[in-house]
This record gives sequence, structure tokens and C-alpha cells, in this order.
Amino acid sequence: MPHSIAEIAAALGTEPLGDGSIEVSGVSEPATAGPSDLALAMKPDYAAGLAQGQAQAAMVWAGADWQSLGLKAAIVAPRARLAMAGLTRLLDPGQGYGAGIHPSAIIDPTAELGEGVSVGPFTIIAAGVKIGAGSVIGPQAHVGTDARIGPGAMLHTGVRIGARVRIGRNFIAQPGAAIGFDGLSFVTEEESGVERARATLGDSSGTRPQSWIRIHSLGSVLIGDDVEIGANSCVDSGTIRPTRIGDGSKIDNLCHIAHNVVVGRDCLFAALVGIAGSTTIGNNVVLGGQVGVTDNTTVGDNVVAGGASVILSKVPAGRVILGYPATKMETHLEGYKALRRLPRLFADVAALKKSVFKDGGND
Amino acid sequence: MPHSIAEIAAALGTEPLGDGSIEVSGVSEPATAGPSDLALAMKPDYAAGLAQGQAQAAMVWAGADWQSLGLKAAIVAPRARLAMAGLTRLLDPGQGYGAGIHPSAIIDPTAELGEGVSVGPFTIIAAGVKIGAGSVIGPQAHVGTDARIGPGAMLHTGVRIGARVRIGRNFIAQPGAAIGFDGLSFVTEEESGVERARATLGDSSGTRPQSWIRIHSLGSVLIGDDVEIGANSCVDSGTIRPTRIGDGSKIDNLCHIAHNVVVGRDCLFAALVGIAGSTTIGNNVVLGGQVGVTDNTTVGDNVVAGGASVILSKVPAGRVILGYPATKMETHLEGYKALRRLPRLFADVAALKKSVFKDGGND
Amino acid sequence: MPHSIAEIAAALGTEPLGDGSIEVSGVSEPATAGPSDLALAMKPDYAAGLAQGQAQAAMVWAGADWQSLGLKAAIVAPRARLAMAGLTRLLDPGQGYGAGIHPSAIIDPTAELGEGVSVGPFTIIAAGVKIGAGSVIGPQAHVGTDARIGPGAMLHTGVRIGARVRIGRNFIAQPGAAIGFDGLSFVTEEESGVERARATLGDSSGTRPQSWIRIHSLGSVLIGDDVEIGANSCVDSGTIRPTRIGDGSKIDNLCHIAHNVVVGRDCLFAALVGIAGSTTIGNNVVLGGQVGVTDNTTVGDNVVAGGASVILSKVPAGRVILGYPATKMETHLEGYKALRRLPRLFADVAALKKSVFKDGGND
Repeated sequence: MPHSIAEIAAALGTEPLGDGSIEVSGVSEPATAGPSDLALAMKPDYAAGLAQGQAQAAMVWAGADWQSLGLKAAIVAPRARLAMAGLTRLLDPGQGYGAGIHPSAIIDPTAELGEGVSVGPFTIIAAGVKIGAGSVIGPQAHVGTDARIGPGAMLHTGVRIGARVRIGRNFIAQPGAAIGFDGLSFVTEEESGVERARATLGDSSGTRPQSWIRIHSLGSVLIGDDVEIGANSCVDSGTIRPTRIGDGSKIDNLCHIAHNVVVGRDCLFAALVGIAGSTTIGNNVVLGGQVGVTDNTTVGDNVVAGGASVILSKVPAGRVILGYPATKMETHLEGYKALRRLPRLFADVAALKKSVFKDGGND
Repeated sequence: MPHSIAEIAAALGTEPLGDGSIEVSGVSEPATAGPSDLALAMKPDYAAGLAQGQAQAAMVWAGADWQSLGLKAAIVAPRARLAMAGLTRLLDPGQGYGAGIHPSAIIDPTAELGEGVSVGPFTIIAAGVKIGAGSVIGPQAHVGTDARIGPGAMLHTGVRIGARVRIGRNFIAQPGAAIGFDGLSFVTEEESGVERARATLGDSSGTRPQSWIRIHSLGSVLIGDDVEIGANSCVDSGTIRPTRIGDGSKIDNLCHIAHNVVVGRDCLFAALVGIAGSTTIGNNVVLGGQVGVTDNTTVGDNVVAGGASVILSKVPAGRVILGYPATKMETHLEGYKALRRLPRLFADVAALKKSVFKDGGND
Repeated sequence: MPHSIAEIAAALGTEPLGDGSIEVSGVSEPATAGPSDLALAMKPDYAAGLAQGQAQAAMVWAGADWQSLGLKAAIVAPRARLAMAGLTRLLDPGQGYGAGIHPSAIIDPTAELGEGVSVGPFTIIAAGVKIGAGSVIGPQAHVGTDARIGPGAMLHTGVRIGARVRIGRNFIAQPGAAIGFDGLSFVTEEESGVERARATLGDSSGTRPQSWIRIHSLGSVLIGDDVEIGANSCVDSGTIRPTRIGDGSKIDNLCHIAHNVVVGRDCLFAALVGIAGSTTIGNNVVLGGQVGVTDNTTVGDNVVAGGASVILSKVPAGRVILGYPATKMETHLEGYKALRRLPRLFADVAALKKSVFKDGGND
């Protein structure tokens, strides 16, 4: 679906430069752009690429002399990544799941679908489900008993929503996401080795081997508005109260949100993050890929954790952390530098001992 | 389905206090409980919540003056989490997959299903499969050629069981679990860089780039009784002998159990754990979230590993470990404390050098 | 399907010893081998096992006196794992998905399937798809709009290929792999806390809470020949250009390859590896399980990273690395040894202070 440069500029809240009637149907890096692509040249580095490619129009850096770059039209993006958001939304051809209810879908007669909801092939909508207007329930998906999904949702192929999950507006779930199934919650008849090790900080002795007895997860999941969950990520049901994800939070692929966890508003978790049971994450928290957070702890608002940080205890609001265990980034970097300087320190101490104790001391 | 307090108390092996005929249909935290909820108030902290909520009955802490808390009935739980197991089992409404064989399921005529087995929509049961009585094979699942599943299983939506997998009684698999597919097993024609690096502990030089040749996984998977596998977790087939999971072991979401691994009895692995190929894990081993275990090693019985520990070598039985690389918890904590004290140590050594060498030494 | 020892030897490029007409239908460890199994006894350690089992034929170590081990036929494997590749390929009974197009599959009339392509039950092939000859598209899979898959592919049950993904020859995808869906790419209207923390290496203050605005992923995924992707792994679409996986690369279960990543030729990634956005991985790179690589960095050719290494910056070609942060393996091991020796160093410095400053100094 082609868009004119004028139309794109308007969508981005700016004015086109040059011939706004030129139409583009895709975007491209400058060097590989065809004549119907909008070239993305948001930095001066891309000037050479524009000469190589065939773009007639480009999104350019502020102050670019776009005419001398051979362009017939241009759009200036003051904050490049923000412009990318508007531009890619406009040009996204999507997965093409198709409109309407596919005849192979199995929809319980008690389910209520809002206006314009589409349901893909081999998808199951269980009893008592309510889905808001305009939602796209993709192919091979499963929406469990009494689940609620707000308007404007996009469930990609193979998404699984468990029974009694409640989800707000504009929800996006990537393929294979599993939301609202059982948490890992087990107990032994007597105190177990792991309970003793936790209580004593390291001693698991004196406990006898026991089998695990299952605690069922009755609390389901409660998700706010504008949330996105990545491919093959899991959000487990709470035990009694629901596990919660706040409005605007975005969670990447292969993440694990355990039972009873509370995630605040506008958080961003990269892939392979794991949040253990009953932990609370504040608002606007950013966790890098593979970050782990232990159970029953608290991470304050606006915390930023670098990739693969391991959070083993409470983190105050606003802290930028890194490492295993995660500490303030500057503490981590100092510790790391000190570690690198250790061989020299050992040599210094050996020299001191030789000098002070003459005979080389007790080494 | 409502249960009387007397009935719940009996299921937990105790006596009800007060009016045992009161019926409840759900559980709740005290403050949000309605009149038909059993409030869970296992600690004195919850007394105020009971006043806020509308519960008529509650599970309370030992010694609670339940009548003065406004309750008409109460149950005392000496070991709270254990009581939760019985209680939640009783009250779990489940996913509601429905009984019987759904007409859309594809079941090979050579498959044998025990009494009362249910099979959900769009599920495939391949040739030669045997499934024990009372098992629930959920929607959109796949049970491969000649697989055996014991009685009492619950396969949630989208579970995939590969060919020739053998599973014992009371198996539970959460959505998207993939059990019995190919391991990552590859070889190069000549010694590869990674083989050389392992042999020399760090030198990969002198090897030429090569392509990987696939070793197929013929050994499938053997799972004992009472095992649970979490959502989107993977248990790969062994190469020649089966990969094994012992009776009673519980594995959380997004875990990876590689080819030829042997997991013992009654282990508990939290989410995102990875066990590399041909490693043996003992009995009653507890691994925190994101723990990794290297290939071809052994973890002894009753080991407890803290979250994100990286196990790079053999661990003796009974040890409580933490860190990267994982060491005894006390060693890890000492090392960590020492690291924190390093800046002071550097200052001390500088002062010593100044004093001993007068001129500041060779720094 | 039984194979004669002569036939197997020929497939491995060697000569059979003894009676090459003996037929075997499976492989086994020596001790558990039946009379129709080929025992795998590639090391002298297995001699005792051969006596316990009933194998008539075995693959044995170079120089083995196979006749005295009670065998009627033998094959000698100079490079054992290489022989395993040929042998297991020959004897793999596979998943048995069945030939032909299953009548329940939904194939868009505009899709083009090459000769001998099979499509399993409940699988969806969307509009404009092209699939090369001989490919097996397993059950419950999804191949999205305009995707291209080369000849000889094997898509296991539940694999999801997104729209416009392009894949070369001999592709293998294990169950639940999701390739070509949206990356985690978000932007805030103004500079966010995480942008500030990155720019200042640790200070996120002075930013106000903001919501995330989505950047759509238009670039899809481009995969070379002979690539394998593990169960429940995710390869996200690029933003503008495709995310790329080079020829011959093998990626294990539960891995995450983010948007815009470029993976070279013949790489091997073990399970739970995460590569963050826009990072470039060279050729013949081997990453152990749970390795993480930060975004926008470069890992050179032939790098080998030990399990759970966290790569936070550029790695030169040929390096063998380990740790968090990942450093040269010898540096990591030295640092680790130094950490273990720290308590002694603290004691030494205390003794020095006592001696030099007499009164115990300022401690």
C-alpha cells in the first residue's frame, strides 16, 4: 500500500521537503533502496549510501542538504528513533492473518466477540470468553475459559491464554506466549533442604529426602492496557491473587514471570528475563536480556539493570545496576577493575613481606 | 463448586472450628474476600485485612482468636504452605478442557487410549501411541509415534511429545513443552576450534573453519511417575540411550534438559534452568532460576544451587552453592565481601609501600 | 528398517570386519544391546559391557580384538563422533509425520509447493508461500504470507514462520520455533532513563517516566542453507533490513536472536543463548549454553565462549572467553584464583600493618 511523502510527513507531525506527491511503498537502507522505497538516512554517514541506491525520497538528518544528495523529496527527523515508530507503523504490512471468523475455528456459543473481531484457523475460544472489538485472534491460538481480552488485541499464531486471565486494551502477544497456567509452587510435608538452606544461609543438612506436593495456582493473571508479551514467554497464574502486569509494560521473548509477581507500569524487559515468585517490580523499570530477579523481593521504580544482572536482594528506586550479584554500576565497575589489578597487588604484598620480614615471612 | 468448611478441614486432615456447614466457593486474601470466599489469614498480620473483607470463614494461624476476628468458622493450619496444597487442589477449577474425544482430534487407529481419556480439539495422536486411563490430552497437542503416557496425565494445550517417548503416571506438561525432539549434537570432520579450546583450556588456534555434521538423536526420553514439565520447556532425546527424568521431579517453564542428561528423583528446577548434554543430576536437587550446568558433569544428591549459579564442574552431594562459577555459598559470600573491601586493601598497601619503601616504591 | 553391517560400513566409508551380512535394526550401549542391535563400544571401557549384552556386531575402538569380545562382526571408527553422525543418520526412524498433504491442512491457493512436499494436519500455508521440493512441513505448523523455504526442509510440529521470511536449503526447525515475528524495539518521546544511563554509564536521574512507543519490524528474517533452529527458539524480524543467519549455523533450544542481528556461517549456539539487537556474530563462533551478547557489538570469527559467559563488548577473532563480563579464559581463571586467595592476602596485609605501624595502624 503506497503512501505519499506528504502523507508520511503528516503522520510524523512534520512538513515534507520537496515533492510531497512522490509515493513510496516500503523503507530501505539507503544503498539498497529502490525507486519506490523511502531511504532511511538519519545520519550523515548514510550520504554515500544514498548515491549508491535509487531512492527518490529519504528521511534525512536535521540540516541535510537533501537536494544535493539527489533526492526529490525528504523528511527531517529530529529524534530519529521516534520517527521510526510512526514510519514503521504506517508501512507495516503485518502478518496477514485475514479478517473474519475462520470456519475451522471452534468458538464456544457462550463466548462474546466484539465488533470486527477476527479469529484464525484452528483457534479455540472457550466458554465464557469475552473479546473486545477489533481484536485479531490469530491462527492456532487458544483462549481459555472465562478469559477477558480488551479491544484492539493482536494474538499471534499459537498464543495460549489460560482460564480466567483478564487483559486490557491493545494487547499484543507474540507466537507461543503462554499466559495464565500453573506456577511452580511445591511444598514438602516437613521442612525441606532448600528451606533449611535459605534459613541458615547455606546449610541443608539434617533434612530427609521428600517428595514435592503441588500447590495449585488459582489466581490467574491480570494484565493492564497496552501490554506486549514476546514469543514463547510465560506469565504464570498467581496462587490466590492474580499475577499482575501493569499498563504499558513490554516484555520480550522467552521471559518468565512467575506466580504472584507484580510488574508495574511502562516496564521494558529484554529477552530471557526471569522474575521469581512473589517479587514486585516498580514502574518504568528496564531489565536487560537474561536479567534474573530472586523471589519475594522488590525492585524500585526507574531501576535500570544491565544485561544478565542477577538481582538477589531489594533494589532502591532509580538505581542503575549490573553484575552477579547486581550492584550499582559504578561499584560493579570498580570491583571489576580491582579484580584486574589483583595480580599486581599480590606482587606488591610479596615485596613488602620480603622487605619487612626480611626472610620472606611466613609464606 | 462450593465446599463446606467441614469438608475442607477433613481434606486437610484437621477439625473445623465453629460452624463447619458454612460453604465457600473460592479463596481470597482477607481484605478482598467476599462472603463466599475462604480468607487465607495464616499470619497475625492478616487480622486487619479480615476486618476489611467480608469473609465468614478463614484459614488462620495457630492460636488465632478467630471469633473475635468476626469469623463464623475457621481452620487452623500448622504448616501453612502444606495446607495450601490440599486447599488449592480442592478448589482448583482447572482449565476446563472438556471431557471426551473432540471430533476434530486426529487419532491414529492403532493408538490405544485407556478408560476415560479425553482428547482436545486439533490434537494429534500418532500411530502406536498408548495413553493410560483418565489422562487429559488438551487441545492442539501432539503425541508422536509409539509414545507411551501413563494414567492420570494432564497435557495442556500445545504440548508436544516426540516419537517413542515413555512417560509414567500422573504426568503434567504445561503449554508448549517439547519433549523428545533432536538434541544439539554436531561434529566436524577434523578436530574443531571448540574441541581444541577445551583440550588446551583456552587455545583454539590452528584449526580450520569447518561445517557441522549432525548426529541424530535416536534415544528418545524416559520420564518417571509424578513428573511435571513447565511451559515451553524442552527435554531433548538422547543420542543412543534415553534422556531420563526421575520420579517426582518438577521442572519449571523455559528449562532446557539436553540429550543424554539423567535427572534423579524429586528434583525441583526453577525457570530458565539449562542442563547441558550428558550431565547427571542426583536426587532431591534444587536448582534456582537460570542455573546452568555444564555438560558431562555430575551434581550430587540434595545439592541446592542459588539463582543463576553456573555449575562448571562436579558438585559433591549435599552442598549449597551460589555464583559464577558456583562455589559453596559461604565461599561465594566471603569472596564477594572481599571484593567489596578491595579498595580499602589497595589503600592499605599503598600506605605500607610509602612507609616501607619511603620513596613510594616502584609504583 | 534393518541394515547389514556391510551396508553401514560402506555408509561410513570403511570396510566391515567379520560377517558383513549380519543385519541390525538399532543401536545400543553394549550392556543393554539385543541380538539385532549394533553395540557402540568406541572405547576399551566398553569391553565388559559387550560381554553383558547380546550384540553380535559392534562399532569398536581402533585396535580392538573384536573376535575375542564375542562379536561376529565389527566396524572400526577412527573418529568416533564422526562415525556416530553417519550411523545415526542411517538408523534414525524419525518422527513419522507421514507423507502427502493432510486433508485438514489449510493451503492458500496462491502457495507453491515443490515436488514431494508433505504438509501435516492442522498446518497453515499462507498466501504467496513457496516451499522447495521434498520439504516436510510437520503438523500444527504455520508458514506466513510470502515466506520462502528452500528444498529439503524439516519443520517439526508447531513451528511458526512469519511473513516474508526467506530460508535456504535443508532447513530444520524444532517444535515451537518462532521465526520472523516482531522485535522488542521501543522508543520514548523524550530521552528515557535507560538512554541516559547508557550515555552516562550509570546515571538515570532527571528523566521523567514515559510510555514506550512501538517501532514495527519490517525487515523479516533471511536464513542461509543447512541451518537448524532449536525448539521454542526465536529469531526476530529486523527493523528495516532482515535479521540474518548464515549458512550452516546450528542454534539450540530456547535461544533468542534479536532484530537486526547478523550471525555468520557455521556457528554453533547452545541452549538459552541470547543475542541482543543489531549485534554481529562472525563465522564459526561457538557459544556455550546461556551465553548472552549485548546489543550493537561484534563477536569475531572463531570465538569460543564458555557456558553462561556475558559478552558486554567487542570480542576479537579467535578468542576463547569465559565469565561475567566475558574475558580471555586465562584472564578469567587468574582473576578467579586471585579471588580465592584474597582472604590470605587480607591476613598478610594486616600482619604487615601490625609490623610496620606497630600500633596496628589506622584499621
